[in-house]
Amino acid sequence: MVLTTDALVEGTHFRMGWEPPPALGRRALRINVSDVAAMGAVPRAALVAIEAPADLPVRVLDGIMRGLVADARRLAVAVVGGNVAAGPHLALTVTLIGETGPRLLRRRGARAGDLLFVTGTLGGAAAAVRALEAGRRVSRPPVPLRVETARRLARLATAAIDVSDGLLQDLGHLCRASGVTAEIEAARVPVAPRCRRELGAEATRFALTAGEDYELLLAIPPRAAGRIGTVGCRLTRIGALRAGPPAVRLIDGARSLRVAGWPGFDHFAGRPRDRGGPAACRPRGSRLRMVAG
Amino acid sequence: MVLTTDALVEGTHFRMGWEPPPALGRRALRINVSDVAAMGAVPRAALVAIEAPADLPVRVLDGIMRGLVADARRLAVAVVGGNVAAGPHLALTVTLIGETGPRLLRRRGARAGDLLFVTGTLGGAAAAVRALEAGRRVSRPPVPLRVETARRLARLATAAIDVSDGLLQDLGHLCRASGVTAEIEAARVPVAPRCRRELGAEATRFALTAGEDYELLLAIPPRAAGRIGTVGCRLTRIGALRAGPPAVRLIDGARSLRVAGWPGFDHFAGRPRDRGGPAACRPRGSRLRMVAG
Repeated sequence: MVLTTDALVEGTHFRMGWEPPPALGRRALRINVSDVAAMGAVPRAALVAIEAPADLPVRVLDGIMRGLVADARRLAVAVVGGNVAAGPHLALTVTLIGETGPRLLRRRGARAGDLLFVTGTLGGAAAAVRALEAGRRVSRPPVPLRVETARRLARLATAAIDVSDGLLQDLGHLCRASGVTAEIEAARVPVAPRCRRELGAEATRFALTAGEDYELLLAIPPRAAGRIGTVGCRLTRIGALRAGPPAVRLIDGARSLRVAGWPGFDHFAGRPRDRGGPAACRPRGSRLRMVAG
Repeated sequence: MVLTTDALVEGTHFRMGWEPPPALGRRALRINVSDVAAMGAVPRAALVAIEAPADLPVRVLDGIMRGLVADARRLAVAVVGGNVAAGPHLALTVTLIGETGPRLLRRRGARAGDLLFVTGTLGGAAAAVRALEAGRRVSRPPVPLRVETARRLARLATAAIDVSDGLLQDLGHLCRASGVTAEIEAARVPVAPRCRRELGAEATRFALTAGEDYELLLAIPPRAAGRIGTVGCRLTRIGALRAGPPAVRLIDGARSLRVAGWPGFDHFAGRPRDRGGPAACRPRGSRLRMVAG
């Protein structure tokens, strides 16, 4: 059994009107499904804790739950309970109980020599949020469902994590847990077309740090990589792991530079109480620092 | 296995300064322990989802977690995970996984003829909150731990619920789930001394509807009641169940009146966004309506 909990907080992870209520409900479930999938497990049961202002129309809550429950049914997840509390804003905290498959994937376990793979594309979700924050009316892409892909790859992978706070930050977690150095080839990173279109020359940096993707990052030994086969979605080899201290290196053309710190989504960078702005999804690409050595 | 989730929301369930951070952490855990105990189950693992403003001092969060973890250790509950998200205020959502005992207690299952028992005393916690809301510096009593009591009574009881939103409201849930009418003898209700002292003539009505007690309400058949023995806390017989439509009747001296509606804590009565006040714990005793028939 695996357990996970994750929240969507109004003003931090979403604003009212960015997506229809059912899409928000699906998102609240799927950010948790992503965590369960990243362990090679299958989600089975969910609890939904809702915090809502008293003046929120009931139809909005109904819409949220309709979307969440429909998605849960599709995934054979039973919504078995929850809670509703009054609060100054909307927040959705979902807890998922998952069943482990034949092999449990963790952040630790990756070894020097393993290849690094990522599902789908990166930067598209954060690019949409960036546009929404700028007041443009764009559709927010749904969180991808990678349960089946993860289940197929779990037998081959040595470690995995889902990319929610930016590839470099989440890869950093994997490197620290596994005690390895990662080398990413910038040219191989599967940047989402929307991100490329909107960010231009900054697209790759943005995609490496912006977060919100909920794609899977997996370490797979070279011998096992040949047996991957079809996994139901795009799967890109973006680099490899080397012996060395926990660190992430970015190979950009002829240069190989170490990523300084752990750039990516900083949950508390926005100081929402002081500045009134959401902390989430602000582009961090410009903050990315790389150093020699 | 049983699963439950419950939240403490700043401005709704507490205000900063009402109790030290460790006591707040204990409260967040115990309101969930209460739900697990009410099913005759034993809590085993917890997930803690925290929403916190960026300007909250880290020592406050540390204090909250210290109190929560110390209490969890005492109860042999493993804190296995959680989440931290930025938000405009502090909210603590705990999910508990419990192991069922030999018999699972539910709201349904009570039968006409069963006697009604309640643990501890009622109205003391809400009386303290009332004083705190009035600006007086009083100590907020901790949520009682009734795991062991519930475990002992589970083999005798036909149904149970924890009293979190007021005895009359929670008893109403039990009556509806079990399809019975409850009769409560007002004179038997174990009103907390603090409640009696502060509420005077209104103490019983306040204790019946104010909520926050987290005591256990149990239905036990008369034949089993003789075998109760010691349960580790005060246990008071307050009434009995009769055949009839789901309803609660209050016997006050020679009068027997039906409680109208389901009085008690209304999670959304405060409209916090509009009025700025907490929705919780406002005395509802005066709102209690009883009708003939």
